[in-house]
This record gives sequence, C-alpha cells and structure tokens, in this order.
Amino acid sequence: MRLLHGVAELRAALAGLRPVALVPTMGNLHDGHIALVEQVRAGGHPSVASIFVNPLQFGAGEDFQRYPRTLDADCARLEAAGCDLVFAPDVGAMYPEPQTFQVQPPLADELCGAFRPGHFAGVATVVLKLFNLVQPAVAIFGKKDYQQLFLLKAMVRQFNLPIRILEAETARAADGLALSSRNAYLAAAERDEAPRLYRLLDAAAARIAAGARDFAAQEGAVTAELAAHGWQVEYVLVRDRATLQAPTEATRGLVILAAARLGRTRLIDNIEVHPAPPPTSPGSLDQTRRRRASARDRVLR
Amino acid sequence: MRLLHGVAELRAALAGLRPVALVPTMGNLHDGHIALVEQVRAGGHPSVASIFVNPLQFGAGEDFQRYPRTLDADCARLEAAGCDLVFAPDVGAMYPEPQTFQVQPPLADELCGAFRPGHFAGVATVVLKLFNLVQPAVAIFGKKDYQQLFLLKAMVRQFNLPIRILEAETARAADGLALSSRNAYLAAAERDEAPRLYRLLDAAAARIAAGARDFAAQEGAVTAELAAHGWQVEYVLVRDRATLQAPTEATRGLVILAAARLGRTRLIDNIEVHPAPPPTSPGSLDQTRRRRASARDRVLR
Repeated sequence: MRLLHGVAELRAALAGLRPVALVPTMGNLHDGHIALVEQVRAGGHPSVASIFVNPLQFGAGEDFQRYPRTLDADCARLEAAGCDLVFAPDVGAMYPEPQTFQVQPPLADELCGAFRPGHFAGVATVVLKLFNLVQPAVAIFGKKDYQQLFLLKAMVRQFNLPIRILEAETARAADGLALSSRNAYLAAAERDEAPRLYRLLDAAAARIAAGARDFAAQEGAVTAELAAHGWQVEYVLVRDRATLQAPTEATRGLVILAAARLGRTRLIDNIEVHPAPPPTSPGSLDQTRRRRASARDRVLR
Repeated sequence: MRLLHGVAELRAALAGLRPVALVPTMGNLHDGHIALVEQVRAGGHPSVASIFVNPLQFGAGEDFQRYPRTLDADCARLEAAGCDLVFAPDVGAMYPEPQTFQVQPPLADELCGAFRPGHFAGVATVVLKLFNLVQPAVAIFGKKDYQQLFLLKAMVRQFNLPIRILEAETARAADGLALSSRNAYLAAAERDEAPRLYRLLDAAAARIAAGARDFAAQEGAVTAELAAHGWQVEYVLVRDRATLQAPTEATRGLVILAAARLGRTRLIDNIEVHPAPPPTSPGSLDQTRRRRASARDRVLR
C-alpha cells in the first residue's frame, strides 16, 4: 500500500492504476470505513482511500481543530483491509489558493444544513476536487451521512461525472449506535445513553411501517423522549427518500433523519422505513414476497 | 466529422478518440470560432466542438430565445476546418433534471456579472458539465469574453480539473469590431458605429501604456465618448489582469474591460495594456528588447 501526500505524485501513481474505486474519508477510521474499503474491493477495482479533514466543511466553532487525526493507525487498518493507495494531503495541497469557486448544492439550508451553514457546500466542493484528482470509476459513501449521500449522488448526475456511486449501510455497534469518529468525544455515561437515538428512530420507523401516518406526532415523540434524557435535539424529521423533502402524495419511500447533541457531541442518525408485510393468510413464501413488494409499491416503495 | 446529440453516444464516440481538445461554443460560428478550432488542431489532438445555447447563463429578458441558431451552417464550417466531432445537445440532454447543483464562481457580481445576475454561475456550471462529459485534455476559450476566460482558468485550477486551458486572441473585423454572434443584431447604422468601442479602448490603452495613471479619468473619457454617440454604457473599467480587481501597488498587468449597449444590442470588448518601450537612444534591437522587458517587469509586466 502506498501513502501519498502530494497532488502530483498522486496523479503519477494513478496513471498506472486506473480504473480505481475511491473511499473518501476524514480519517480516524472505524469498522464502518473498513467495510467501505471491503465493499469496493469486492467490485474488483484497485482501491484508493483519501484521508483529509476538510476545513471548508466545518463552521466557526465546530470541531475542525479537535477532530481526531490518527494517520498511522488509519494506514495500518487500511493496509490490513487490502487498500492499494492512501491519499492524505495537507490543507495546502488541497487548497493552494483561496477556494473562491465552490459547489452550491440544493437543500443546503435543510436538515443538517440548517444547523451547519456552508457545510454541504464544503463537502460537495472537496468531493468534487477529490473526484477530479483521483478520477475514480467508482466511489462509495455510507448511509450514516444520508443527506450527504443524497446530495453527492445528485451532484454526480447533475455535473455528468462519469462515476458510479455505491452506498453502504450504516455500521453499528452491538447496541445500535451508529459508528462515528465523533463517538470518541462521548464520556462514558454519554456513550451509555447514545444508543437511545437509534432505538427511538427504529421504533418510530416500525410504527410508520405498521401504518402510522401522523408523521409530526412521530417526530414529536422521538424529540420528546430524547429531550427527556438530556439531549438537545436539532431535528427529527420524516422525509421522502427520493427528495429529502416533506412527504407528499407522490412519496414512495420514507426515511427518518435526526441530529441531536449529547453534551458537547453532535450525533446524527437515520433509518429508512420499510413497510412490514400485510397480515397474510397461510401461503407460499412467494405469495408473501409478492404481497410485500406490491404493498411497498403502493405505499412507500 | 460526426454530429452527435446525445450524451450516451457522445461518451461512446469519445472512448476511441481521447485525448481530445474541446472548443465550447453557443454556435452561430464566425471566424473567431474557427480560429479556435484551428488553434487546438495545431496541438495535434482530435477536436471536439460543442454547440449549445445554454439557458442557465441567460437572465430573464435576455436574448436566449432570439440567439441565432444555425446548426447546419455551423457544421459545414466546422467540417471545413477539420473538426472531428460536434456535440450539439438539446436542453433536455444537458438538463434532464432541474440543475439544482450549480458552480458558484467568484467575481459573479463584478463587471459583466453586475449586469447579468447568475450569468457566470450558468457559464461555469455548463462548462463543468461539458468538461465532465467530454473529459478533454485541452480546452480553448477566447479573450473576447475576458472575465469568462479568467473565471474558467480559476475553476480548472481550484477544482483540480486535469485540463489545459488555451487562450485565443480576440478575432476582429477589419475595422476593429470584435467578432461576436450578437453583431448580427446590429442595424446597418449601428454596425457602422460599433467599432468605436474598440477604437476608444485602444486609445485609452495607448495612453496608459505611455504613462497615464489617472485610470478613473481614462475610464470616464471612454464612457463619455460612447455616451455622446448614443451608447448606453454599462461599465468601462481598468483592472488588474491577474485578479480582475482594481489595480493596486502589486499590479503587474492591466486590462481595460467594457460593456455597452447600442440600441438593443449589448457589446463587450477589452484590451490588455502593454506598455510602450521607453524612449531609446540608438542601440541594438537586443538592448531595446531588454529595456522593454525590464520596463514591463517594473511597471505592468
């Protein structure tokens, strides 16, 4: 595995390696990141991981300075996972001049964007730069950052980037907490409390899957439970998976997204709502599958 | 020469043609466009011309609808010039979904941007899309659209696009008028008047090259002359070539940029200021050249 820091050496190394698959990260890798590497390796392309804590996507007062940087440990994990190349530029290599050109994404003031002004412009801009530097055939992003994944898929379509975007399911601890580098900020008592976020989202998703359509009440119930346990809730919202907007008559799939703070630590999570199969009379598995698919098509996809 | 309208057929055709040079145009080609094709052909790459009147860069009330569309004549000229491939998508091929992702460029409210809100975001966005579709090794733009050229060079640097940008001098009619598709809008009397813009810019550049440093007075003189002959002047500005901002102590090269309307027609032009050599005593040409270079380094580059 090669570790490169400069743009010129990256381009030179890639000339003999393409087509490649890119795994963009901010480092401090956990099992979720390693699963991304394994997922792209299964596709057969050489794998390139980038490690860059991007100042452009952090707001004033956010955790850019204290974000954990663990390059040596990251490289050891990537090498063990079979990664072929690591690109770990410093800020000067990524931004040799002021970045006066930025990508302006839609939904930039919605969901996490409402609480992190400029965040998604910073994400889209650095990912576009990484795409242009690496020119991958494939890139992978996790569903943990659901809005980010949604936006980057749209960016690839709308900017005609010749890149296939893979999605990875959220990796979770045994108690359900979504893996995140920011979990390291949690004190022991906070870590014990943290899985409540996913438990509540999961329960709300189950109620909606079972037929609940009072989305505002569902959002409110999760919010109230979190607040009662000391969380500062930023948002809990039921949204259309295809638009990330409020559900409409045309909605065919739902996702519940949430962001909340536990002490100093901001956690996000989400869950896609998959409707339960309708009650069935005894029948073949095939019939059940057909019913499930048709219910999904009818209501939520 | 192949003429393609669809994105998929373009990608397929390019797979066997790269590396290519791209000449982005809005069609209605004149000698200036053909000179661009000839300039990139001299570089040895197969040449791809795009013809697309991009709605995203036209404001409400601008001339998107009446912009001249002359595809058959354009293709005949391109074929005669040795162009290898023409990509002429319709609006639906370039924007199959609403373009909610846009490139936000700097200086978007300066110079032409002050009079054409959203114009440069539209230009940068469509050029980025064309770059990603064609993936050229080289692309060429004319100095006629000086701010556009400046911005696109910066976009390529800041987004790490692996594309070399060539610049072409402005092609002019015998009387000095910069060639432009919009010249076709001019009535006969307006066409006779139109070369005044370049004559005045040229005279101001000569005065500055000879030592004039009262830039505001120079701008005012050109503006007044144009107004006296019936032009509606949008701006006449002396700017730093390296920043397109007002000149400072650090300025090493100047350009004068102007936009003005003659009747319904908006014309733009510009001229780079190259200082005249200082008065010389008799001496070798080499000495003169040295003096000229050193004066340029000292004052304006």
